[in-house]
Amino acid sequence: MLTFIGLGLYDERSITVEGREALRSADRAFAEFYTSKLIGTTVEELADHHDVDIDVRDRAGVEQDAEAILDAADDGDAAFLTAGDTMISTTHVDLRLRAHERGIETRIVHGVTAQSAASGLTGLQNYRFGKATTLPFPYAHGADGTPKSVVDTIGDNRERGLHTLVYLDIKVGYERAGVDADDEYMTGEFAAGEFARDWDGDALGVVVARAGSPEPVVAADRLSALAEREFGDPLHMLIVPASLHDLEAEALSAFGDAPSDLIDENTV
Amino acid sequence: MLTFIGLGLYDERSITVEGREALRSADRAFAEFYTSKLIGTTVEELADHHDVDIDVRDRAGVEQDAEAILDAADDGDAAFLTAGDTMISTTHVDLRLRAHERGIETRIVHGVTAQSAASGLTGLQNYRFGKATTLPFPYAHGADGTPKSVVDTIGDNRERGLHTLVYLDIKVGYERAGVDADDEYMTGEFAAGEFARDWDGDALGVVVARAGSPEPVVAADRLSALAEREFGDPLHMLIVPASLHDLEAEALSAFGDAPSDLIDENTV
Repeated sequence: MLTFIGLGLYDERSITVEGREALRSADRAFAEFYTSKLIGTTVEELADHHDVDIDVRDRAGVEQDAEAILDAADDGDAAFLTAGDTMISTTHVDLRLRAHERGIETRIVHGVTAQSAASGLTGLQNYRFGKATTLPFPYAHGADGTPKSVVDTIGDNRERGLHTLVYLDIKVGYERAGVDADDEYMTGEFAAGEFARDWDGDALGVVVARAGSPEPVVAADRLSALAEREFGDPLHMLIVPASLHDLEAEALSAFGDAPSDLIDENTV
Repeated sequence: MLTFIGLGLYDERSITVEGREALRSADRAFAEFYTSKLIGTTVEELADHHDVDIDVRDRAGVEQDAEAILDAADDGDAAFLTAGDTMISTTHVDLRLRAHERGIETRIVHGVTAQSAASGLTGLQNYRFGKATTLPFPYAHGADGTPKSVVDTIGDNRERGLHTLVYLDIKVGYERAGVDADDEYMTGEFAAGEFARDWDGDALGVVVARAGSPEPVVAADRLSALAEREFGDPLHMLIVPASLHDLEAEALSAFGDAPSDLIDENTV
């Protein structure tokens, strides 16, 4: 049996009770933290807390060397851990398909996603979000400025009256050969600056920092103003809203300290 | 302090560890189950499991009589529970705003959503979902056939190459005055039949039944064929996919038993 378990957003207590039971009863536990990370804990703390050994795999260790994981799942109960929900990345779907081909039973224990946290913390209604997008680091996409596909997604969503959640790139150090090995997390202020320069600095943006932590931050302001601020420790997300409904406007004022003139401009 | 806690999708073990701790340390616990329900447990079992009393409120008891909840949050630690995530409904945002106006601190403990489960279980990629929609019971919207707004959402999403998650209506018995008091849950087969009649019976649909339970079901077939099947106990969802990427096609074949000719027709 191969059980995919989403660890949730922040620390070792972000997992569901069901997920914790499945993890603790597994014979072997594997994890990947290259698609996302838990900022509020370390692998060591996670392993100690659940009293399991965790074999952390880099991208190559999952995608090109899945046999060890599949063998463990063939011999007994194996758990495969990811931050947030599981199956978000094609990596995970591919691994599940390979298990299925080998006749190994699979099971999914869902985790909390950044998307629902972004909606919940800001008060922007879940059903008003369109397609999400990711803003990559400039060195990662190679082109000058903000990728057209990202700007197009925001534009398409706004035309339909929908908000856009922009995930901000993370790079786990060991993935950048020849560059220092620290992890890099794109900040909300950086992303706001990119959009202010390449799209519309006067537009409303909402930075959500440390969703799922005990002290998340929500800040609603013009993109050009958000670019001048500092939102501290990762992870950050940026939302570019469509026109606001009244309750959303109230929520961004109350919980995101949005300037009142900006709210007026953006309310239907 | 007023803590909004998402209970997750299925039973008393679907809550996060953090949520469980917050619930157990609360002085008072309130809940609403008119926007969604936990199918795998009862209120009594939930209360027993966490050793708390739970004051379940109907819609009027939340929207028109919030004072009791706010008073409890003013006097101590109050928890407000919902199935799935919290803040999905405007009800919850409104309650949080009222607490804020009274100077009561609020906190959100996120829960697993049906949306991430729908993506994870089917292998349809999360970033390829557009705006979600809800199919209401025919008696609830009053018009003949499937509401135009629902069909339009599917069409708009497909034009942009995006999948549509269709939530299926639930009615908690006591909300329908004059009708028997059983809860009603729209089934996947009913919804597929509605779309087959009013939109396109040959199109690919995916029913997801009992997401978050130990034995979820995923079934991919033509809408007209799905309409002839029975998917058993609630809750159900229906996905109308856009053209499939290769890995998505493989996943729907492996985990949803999609007919191969239908997959070929729908793969880019």
